[in-house]
Amino acid sequence: MSKELVFGHQNPDTDAIVAAKAFSYYENKMGADTEAVALGEPNEETQFVLDYFDEPALRVITKASDEVDSVMLVDHNEPQQSVSDIADVTVSHVVDHHRIAGFDTAQPLFYRAEPLGCCSTVIYKLFKENDIEIPAKLAGLMLSAIISDTLLLKSPTTTETDVAVVKDLAKIADIDYETYGLAMLKAGTNLDSKTEKELIDADAKSFEMAGKTVRVAQINTVDLDDVFKRQAALEAAAKDENASDGYDLFLILATNILDSNSELLVVGNPTEPVEKAFGKTIANNRLSLPGVVSRKKQVVPQLTDAFNA
Amino acid sequence: MSKELVFGHQNPDTDAIVAAKAFSYYENKMGADTEAVALGEPNEETQFVLDYFDEPALRVITKASDEVDSVMLVDHNEPQQSVSDIADVTVSHVVDHHRIAGFDTAQPLFYRAEPLGCCSTVIYKLFKENDIEIPAKLAGLMLSAIISDTLLLKSPTTTETDVAVVKDLAKIADIDYETYGLAMLKAGTNLDSKTEKELIDADAKSFEMAGKTVRVAQINTVDLDDVFKRQAALEAAAKDENASDGYDLFLILATNILDSNSELLVVGNPTEPVEKAFGKTIANNRLSLPGVVSRKKQVVPQLTDAFNA
Ligand SMILES: [Zn+2]
Ligand SMILES: [Zn+2]
Ligand SMILES: [Zn+2]
Ligand SMILES: [Zn+2]
Repeated sequence: MSKELVFGHQNPDTDAIVAAKAFSYYENKMGADTEAVALGEPNEETQFVLDYFDEPALRVITKASDEVDSVMLVDHNEPQQSVSDIADVTVSHVVDHHRIAGFDTAQPLFYRAEPLGCCSTVIYKLFKENDIEIPAKLAGLMLSAIISDTLLLKSPTTTETDVAVVKDLAKIADIDYETYGLAMLKAGTNLDSKTEKELIDADAKSFEMAGKTVRVAQINTVDLDDVFKRQAALEAAAKDENASDGYDLFLILATNILDSNSELLVVGNPTEPVEKAFGKTIANNRLSLPGVVSRKKQVVPQLTDAFNA
Repeated sequence: MSKELVFGHQNPDTDAIVAAKAFSYYENKMGADTEAVALGEPNEETQFVLDYFDEPALRVITKASDEVDSVMLVDHNEPQQSVSDIADVTVSHVVDHHRIAGFDTAQPLFYRAEPLGCCSTVIYKLFKENDIEIPAKLAGLMLSAIISDTLLLKSPTTTETDVAVVKDLAKIADIDYETYGLAMLKAGTNLDSKTEKELIDADAKSFEMAGKTVRVAQINTVDLDDVFKRQAALEAAAKDENASDGYDLFLILATNILDSNSELLVVGNPTEPVEKAFGKTIANNRLSLPGVVSRKKQVVPQLTDAFNA
């Protein structure tokens, strides 16, 4: 059997990088000849993980067919998320935890997906089923991937299996996963390296509400103070964009991904529908929204109703 | 969790019926509430298996959405092989050993496929991984499915895993799998109940070769004598069809699925290209073709070349 490449999705997150390393290690132990690669550079969180465990980054590829005939996919299956020439190679293995869409093969293959919080949790099960030992360093990487995908086991996608697996991996890696996980997530939401304009532009969407243009930006953090220590500068940046881009109202939803609470910063007018939407009074241009994490489900519909009332 | 249905593909073979029974049993042991059903009546081979183990046939359904919201697929994934209203239900689990094609989901799911000889072999692995005991009767059914899909472990799709699993299941079921398997395969290729016309029509395809119309029928058997004791009547039926349907040449490829040898019965003209294609002389209208099992790969291309030479 000739060599195969193992890789996760484009714009790799920690799971995409770690699952490739873990599954390649597993497959090689099972007798295959594989190399883990990546479809992009590590993000800040993943770089923190690699540095912490003194682990090299993966070689980045943009094409596979010039190297191999056959590939193994982790943490994805949809062709548009995969390597550019995925249609020109055979997919022999998939390990994943996402929906299946647009994935077609000519031949039978190994496909292992489970609705768990992280692809690395599925790979942990493969190690166990086949009695393959997980080295301490790999355990640390896999634990990092699960903490990343599940936001320290707190996201609604977290399962009992993810919790149990993190605890076992923490034992193997000899690590306090809560302390380590917090530091890792903080590294991934490092707001200090970004300007206020970058922060409010990175994940922002515009909505028309009763004739007003409302801009809603979301900033994820592990500490709301990291956002609000820059409140005045953020307000100034939002005010600039209201003027330059014609928004009536700019809302900055700062979300603490660890405790699932948000704080809304309100810049512009009208502000009454905002207060009505959440049944609260704005103070110091802010509104606290405990339990709110989803702009799509917990902010926009409520605002729309209040504007139209 | 509400009840789910588990079923194999349309026109069910033994694996489609048995894998549904086995996976439903497994899922119920794991805490789910499932019922195994089928998308069609058992064929002759499957009926032999059910009778042998005193096992009831499955309830046949044509729609799922009037009973359940969610289903589990075994031995298939392609929508056109599945229940008619597959688009109206959620697929929560798939266990399979085929290629993946046209299969899309909105949500993450459990998907377990391996390139093994039989879906029931994959399900056996699930039982082992989760320490669930396989009852003797179910072991007998699963062993039957593997023997059916792999033609008694002789088809090119057979893997070492299938062989090992059949041997273990034979121990659990306390059965001589070779003797039993032969009887089972014979029951499935019971030619005596069919007319000569039925035998040559069941699996026949027409090909244009150098201006001649060549009809190639294939009849699977576990004993070539079961075909050739009816040689004169088969020749007469083929001659009738040559006259009525305008075929120049009618070839009947009788294949012994147990030893992978075929014998070709030749009715019509020209016969020279047939002799040239296989480098043999026709005697008593017959040509022996040891090692030939595939019409598509081992007969049609050779004939086409000889006709065009
Ligand atoms: Zn990912
Ligand atoms: Zn993931
Ligand atoms: Zn089947
Ligand atoms: Zn099958």
